[in-house]
Amino acid sequence: MAADPVPLAQAMIRCRSVTPADDGALDVVQRALEPLGFTCTRLVFGPDDYRVDNLFARRGTAGPHFCYAGHTDVVPPGDPAAWADDPFAAVVRDGTLYGRGACDMKGGFAAFIAGLTDYLAANPNHPGSISLLITGDEEDRSVDGTLKVLEWMQANGQVPDMALVGEPTSRRALGDTIKIGRRGSLTARITVQGKQGHSAYPALADNPIHRLVAALGPLLAAPLDNGSEFFPPTTLQVTGFDVGNKASNVIPAVARAMLNIRFNDHHSSATLTERLHAALRAAGCAYEMQADCSGESFLTRPGPFVDALSRAIARSTGETPALDTGGGTSDARFIARYCPVAEFGAVGATLHQVNESAPVDELRRLAATYRAILEEVLA
Amino acid sequence: MAADPVPLAQAMIRCRSVTPADDGALDVVQRALEPLGFTCTRLVFGPDDYRVDNLFARRGTAGPHFCYAGHTDVVPPGDPAAWADDPFAAVVRDGTLYGRGACDMKGGFAAFIAGLTDYLAANPNHPGSISLLITGDEEDRSVDGTLKVLEWMQANGQVPDMALVGEPTSRRALGDTIKIGRRGSLTARITVQGKQGHSAYPALADNPIHRLVAALGPLLAAPLDNGSEFFPPTTLQVTGFDVGNKASNVIPAVARAMLNIRFNDHHSSATLTERLHAALRAAGCAYEMQADCSGESFLTRPGPFVDALSRAIARSTGETPALDTGGGTSDARFIARYCPVAEFGAVGATLHQVNESAPVDELRRLAATYRAILEEVLA
Repeated sequence: MAADPVPLAQAMIRCRSVTPADDGALDVVQRALEPLGFTCTRLVFGPDDYRVDNLFARRGTAGPHFCYAGHTDVVPPGDPAAWADDPFAAVVRDGTLYGRGACDMKGGFAAFIAGLTDYLAANPNHPGSISLLITGDEEDRSVDGTLKVLEWMQANGQVPDMALVGEPTSRRALGDTIKIGRRGSLTARITVQGKQGHSAYPALADNPIHRLVAALGPLLAAPLDNGSEFFPPTTLQVTGFDVGNKASNVIPAVARAMLNIRFNDHHSSATLTERLHAALRAAGCAYEMQADCSGESFLTRPGPFVDALSRAIARSTGETPALDTGGGTSDARFIARYCPVAEFGAVGATLHQVNESAPVDELRRLAATYRAILEEVLA
Repeated sequence: MAADPVPLAQAMIRCRSVTPADDGALDVVQRALEPLGFTCTRLVFGPDDYRVDNLFARRGTAGPHFCYAGHTDVVPPGDPAAWADDPFAAVVRDGTLYGRGACDMKGGFAAFIAGLTDYLAANPNHPGSISLLITGDEEDRSVDGTLKVLEWMQANGQVPDMALVGEPTSRRALGDTIKIGRRGSLTARITVQGKQGHSAYPALADNPIHRLVAALGPLLAAPLDNGSEFFPPTTLQVTGFDVGNKASNVIPAVARAMLNIRFNDHHSSATLTERLHAALRAAGCAYEMQADCSGESFLTRPGPFVDALSRAIARSTGETPALDTGGGTSDARFIARYCPVAEFGAVGATLHQVNESAPVDELRRLAATYRAILEEVLA
């Protein structure tokens, strides 16, 4: 009889692990993994007022090394009165598990451990090795979690050969979508310095609004690209433009703009930053720009690893998974620097919402699918 | 011996007539004009908290009717401690008259009355008739002054055939510049309504910043014209652009812009407003626009009146006056709706400044020049 993910998911949900709190969630995980033969290492990072607990667990030392990555932290529940049940009660009603994290991603993580349990029971001497990279800092700053655990793993000879992030990626039916990449995100804050003056005598002034409009116009006039094999076109959105001048007859001295670029594998934050510099220079701007990249774009091209995932998912769910790169960022962007990484998990319909939930049946089918994935990737 | 403008200028400066206060300034004027045969009418306009005193004076009823227009109000002196003398003491030192209004325009106005006195002494039975339109509301709102006196003049059959505004127009030497027109000024405030959204999913939003940049870009890319015979090119300055959004990943719902256009005789506020509407429509903007015109452009083309002014000024000063249309607005913009109007007066070097002043010699030469003007325009 298959291991049931529901009791483990309930035990995790009952820990109020709103980032960066842990509230015992990783202890629940560690108690589940140690009997399965995993060596667990707790890794605490972060400043005093933002201490983050993380867990690295590994079974075996042989290659290939498959790593499952996930997180036990959750977003705040908001007003508990808006929920039908206590958001941390983990109530099961009418075949559905309710609670903060049921969908993102304590439910899916419990399903992985259930599938892992069954896989190990059937394959006690499996080839390769299996690890878990579990963080408590995915939903907020994402600084003292996966990023630092990966550095530790590299320093300790634990870099995997492939990784699967257990985020809820399925859209309508379990198994319909694998994410094999994500767009990058670059935010730039630009300050253009002009020369103040009277609007009646513009030759004596230098209007920074005109400079900024001249710089932004060409950037907005045409798409930065037409998309690539697995990505939609890169988008550039100017999300701020401010001057703060109240006098209609005064040319202001300074204008500020803010923009956000979501970019595909045609670009990097470095090439885009240079493109912004070039546009500002072409418009003759005297300016300062601060560019911050919260994640480079990445793509795990179809190949043996993605093929193995697809085969396992099709066999277990009957779905032919689409290879998708949509949506926001996840910790996969950090892992992509080290090894091929993909994301697969439950249907994310209620992610971050009030009355977040996961159908019990889906969690059980997800457990079986994770078992199938282990069978394929370690074959 | 010629009448001296200095004592009259001092008497006027000693009235603290910061707009809309009069403090006896128009009484000084009326006492000077009545002995010269002028019929004086006082015209009080404006709300209780902004009462403006104005004076209309006329000598004779025959045509041609020449009108001198001026104002007795002054701008505030600022911090009196910054002045070498009390700004209302009207001190004469080393051949220069100091005080608020010495230059703009009590000094020049006193010069006109001195020149008028000499002209009438020499020409007691001059042809035509002479009037003075003197307001106490030129420097601030300009609503209850010249504008309303002109309406009264029209209602009472007193519209002149030509008018001279006594603002300080000379640049380096007395007589070097006559103003025969002014640019118009249009201020537009634009609010573009978009649709808020996440910067990662711009297809679900409508970025009002992008719309506004697309509307403004073509307006700024090329001059609105190349100038005309007597005017420099029209200028358009965007003086405000504000959104107020702090979140780099949020596409804001609304963007606002403010712009000021200084326009020549190729345009009117109506044609420019339509041009702005067309640019906003072309960019697909859902918008509201408020357009306010503080003065249409006007031009008094060279002809008998301007020629007579030029002849008189050249004869009196030795300068060949340039016909200019530069600078900001004056009450001439209101008079231009009724008759040909030009502006001529002292060198305006210290206008609105601390230690505002006028050389005594210049005021006396200006008086002689105004006398020469009366001789030419009423010949």
